[in-house]
Amino acid sequence: MPTRLVAIGGSDAGISGALRARELDPTADVIVALADVYPNHSICGIPYYVSGEVGDWHNLAHRTIADLEATGMSLRLDTVARRIDPAAHTVRLGSPDGREETLEYDALIVGTGALPIRPPIAGLDHLGPEQGVHVLHSMGDTFALMRTLQNRQARRAVIVGAGYIGLEMAEALTTTGRAVTQVEQLAEVLPTVDPELGALVRAELHRREVNVLCSTRVDAIETACPGGPHRLEVRATGPDGQPVHLPADVVLVSVGVRPDTELAAAAGAELGIKGAIVVDRRMRTNLPDVLAAGDCAITHHPLLGTTYLPLGTTAHKQGRIAGENALGGTREFAGSLGTQVVKVFDLVAARTGLRDSEATPAGFDPLTVASEADDHKAYYPGSHKIAMRYTGDRRTGQLLGLQLVGHLGSEIAKRIDVAATAIFNRMTVEAISDLDLSYTPPLGSPWDALQHGAQAWQRQAHTRPSTDT
Amino acid sequence: MPTRLVAIGGSDAGISGALRARELDPTADVIVALADVYPNHSICGIPYYVSGEVGDWHNLAHRTIADLEATGMSLRLDTVARRIDPAAHTVRLGSPDGREETLEYDALIVGTGALPIRPPIAGLDHLGPEQGVHVLHSMGDTFALMRTLQNRQARRAVIVGAGYIGLEMAEALTTTGRAVTQVEQLAEVLPTVDPELGALVRAELHRREVNVLCSTRVDAIETACPGGPHRLEVRATGPDGQPVHLPADVVLVSVGVRPDTELAAAAGAELGIKGAIVVDRRMRTNLPDVLAAGDCAITHHPLLGTTYLPLGTTAHKQGRIAGENALGGTREFAGSLGTQVVKVFDLVAARTGLRDSEATPAGFDPLTVASEADDHKAYYPGSHKIAMRYTGDRRTGQLLGLQLVGHLGSEIAKRIDVAATAIFNRMTVEAISDLDLSYTPPLGSPWDALQHGAQAWQRQAHTRPSTDT
Repeated sequence: MPTRLVAIGGSDAGISGALRARELDPTADVIVALADVYPNHSICGIPYYVSGEVGDWHNLAHRTIADLEATGMSLRLDTVARRIDPAAHTVRLGSPDGREETLEYDALIVGTGALPIRPPIAGLDHLGPEQGVHVLHSMGDTFALMRTLQNRQARRAVIVGAGYIGLEMAEALTTTGRAVTQVEQLAEVLPTVDPELGALVRAELHRREVNVLCSTRVDAIETACPGGPHRLEVRATGPDGQPVHLPADVVLVSVGVRPDTELAAAAGAELGIKGAIVVDRRMRTNLPDVLAAGDCAITHHPLLGTTYLPLGTTAHKQGRIAGENALGGTREFAGSLGTQVVKVFDLVAARTGLRDSEATPAGFDPLTVASEADDHKAYYPGSHKIAMRYTGDRRTGQLLGLQLVGHLGSEIAKRIDVAATAIFNRMTVEAISDLDLSYTPPLGSPWDALQHGAQAWQRQAHTRPSTDT
Repeated sequence: MPTRLVAIGGSDAGISGALRARELDPTADVIVALADVYPNHSICGIPYYVSGEVGDWHNLAHRTIADLEATGMSLRLDTVARRIDPAAHTVRLGSPDGREETLEYDALIVGTGALPIRPPIAGLDHLGPEQGVHVLHSMGDTFALMRTLQNRQARRAVIVGAGYIGLEMAEALTTTGRAVTQVEQLAEVLPTVDPELGALVRAELHRREVNVLCSTRVDAIETACPGGPHRLEVRATGPDGQPVHLPADVVLVSVGVRPDTELAAAAGAELGIKGAIVVDRRMRTNLPDVLAAGDCAITHHPLLGTTYLPLGTTAHKQGRIAGENALGGTREFAGSLGTQVVKVFDLVAARTGLRDSEATPAGFDPLTVASEADDHKAYYPGSHKIAMRYTGDRRTGQLLGLQLVGHLGSEIAKRIDVAATAIFNRMTVEAISDLDLSYTPPLGSPWDALQHGAQAWQRQAHTRPSTDT
């Protein structure tokens, strides 16, 4: 009898696992159950559908349903997994028409993903899309938001949170002509980078007329007086404790996600950091023949051991490994460095590895050094400065992390990838200057910006005198 | 008494060495002798001065003479080094006014660079800038070319050679409104990449109305009949042996460089591959206290041992190491991978590491696999395909080389740098898929193009079945 693999979840992890299994064993019986009808959609692309840059939401699909089925996998759409019985190796599925079905499996991949965090804001418990209050994590959320934007004259938007999605949505809603206020509880936008770099992103938001309120806590969302000029009112507390009232036609709450683990936990799966499902590097849970991958699971990290990093790139990699190991493979996940990049209007911000605040608890002796350098030779038109923050270990010189902010055309994304590759290989900061990086005046410098930054770190670390020449 | 370091040559290698020495020992007596009055100029930037994109040639200086002197080094401009006496530790310099001076040194850095190759073309021995026949390697060559372009109605240009400089000059002269014919003896342009990728560059040249003649050997350059519509005639032999006559107002010969080693060889320096000065990884020649760096010296290469790779990036690195070791340091050059990138109109071509033809003689068992992938998610506007050629070793799976051609906005330069970093760290092709690379839809994919290319190589190599998901 062929091996039966069931994947719960139709996003990056579940689909990657199913694809890999079908690729490795074309006889495998692979079933993917998903709660909606949008398998393998690019959730990261939603802001660009909202902005109008992606005209048709169907294009957000990495693959169509027909593409997926052509690989030989079966899809169970609109299907919720109700219960895993690990001893019996069965999973109970709830079908759209209310019927239930119990499937046996040889291996199960839990790819249930994450859920948007609902912060303790008064009103959030009873206000929703009908009133213009939204979260944005699924295609269903997207369609609800688009209905609000299209059906009502939603001119004023308040975005709660200034992380990746919040920033991308500030750009998207500004691009479509709306007045956007972005409220961030922390002292600076994009809290995943150091505030010195977040400030550059905030300046870009200001330049594009996004109203940014940092150190501001949203207390309540209320419906406004009927007949008034706007539908909602957001009540917040500003940096000095002063009350802030923000009128809004649409409110988007985007303050992060938490792992969706209810199903796995009920079956006895061990949970770890941030409540995510504990897996080993082969993506195995503590339950026999049950693997987990993606945003519902913990993340192995070469410098931290384990952490929780819900990222699409990681979900693809983990899912692929789970798919291979579900069929008896022994492949290990090499780990995530938390490499991330975001475009905010004409700026790009990126990071990989650790910042001081993460490195110190992990036992490192970090030093972070700020510097800047030209993206390409300044004599060639269109050059911009890249702002860098290099983090290295004082004792060993090991490169621990890099943060970059620069212009859209400054190859920031792939520059952070050079650093991610260097960290992956446990290079020292000093050795960055040994790398044979490419150079032509329109695209670089004889010492690349990354090498100038590394040399600035060296100078400050005094591990060895060093400079750019 | 302070240490005296003399550097011969005022380009990348000599200046980098002098800067590094002054940085490490502010008491060192550092003298740089150069044959012209343009120290530390960006030779790679010359095409962009010719094109008009760099308005003032002074901007091509990485540093001004005042900047350089402010570091404490002495510059001897218009000064030719006539003879090194290694036993006496002296070098004889010829000054502009005909006087000679003999300097003692504790350490000497030979950074005499390279000279343009003059191929065996009839007429090249007696035709020169006065007749509109040029090479392009120094600021002096540049000014001579600019005089030809400005003083005469130079409408038709013939460029002999389609390497990096030849291609950049084809763009520059086209940009300034001239009709350009590019003649390449080999079967395809940009012979430093595989012809399949060179063909993409040639298509871009055609699109921009550059007349490209490959497999065409230039036999002679002649002055045209007086009073005719053009000044010169280039006679060549086409692919089928047929004669080709090309009228021209200006001819640029750009077929590569050879190391300028006359001075060092006369002093007894050992010469090696391509006639370049033999140095160890500390940049020491066989002569006591004489180091060499840059285009006049051989290049250490992690995969090849030694080779000859005249590149500005390498010259900067080698010069910096020579400067450190001239003062008693023991630093070793980590090696060059031949990482190169060139912009040709809206295309960028890049390479790092080895191609099949280089890997086989070096003892590898190379396999090169072509593939293509989107630079970023195709649903986001402005995506382009990147053409890739991955080279890996069949036996070990080691990544040996990568060649890329893509659009100007596709972060080709820094993508090749990711590969250069991977090769530097002796990664396998397979491990490229383990790298945690950045992703946002406007700038990448969940599996980066580089990872799609690596997976395509894996599939063909059959070392282990693998695919993108």
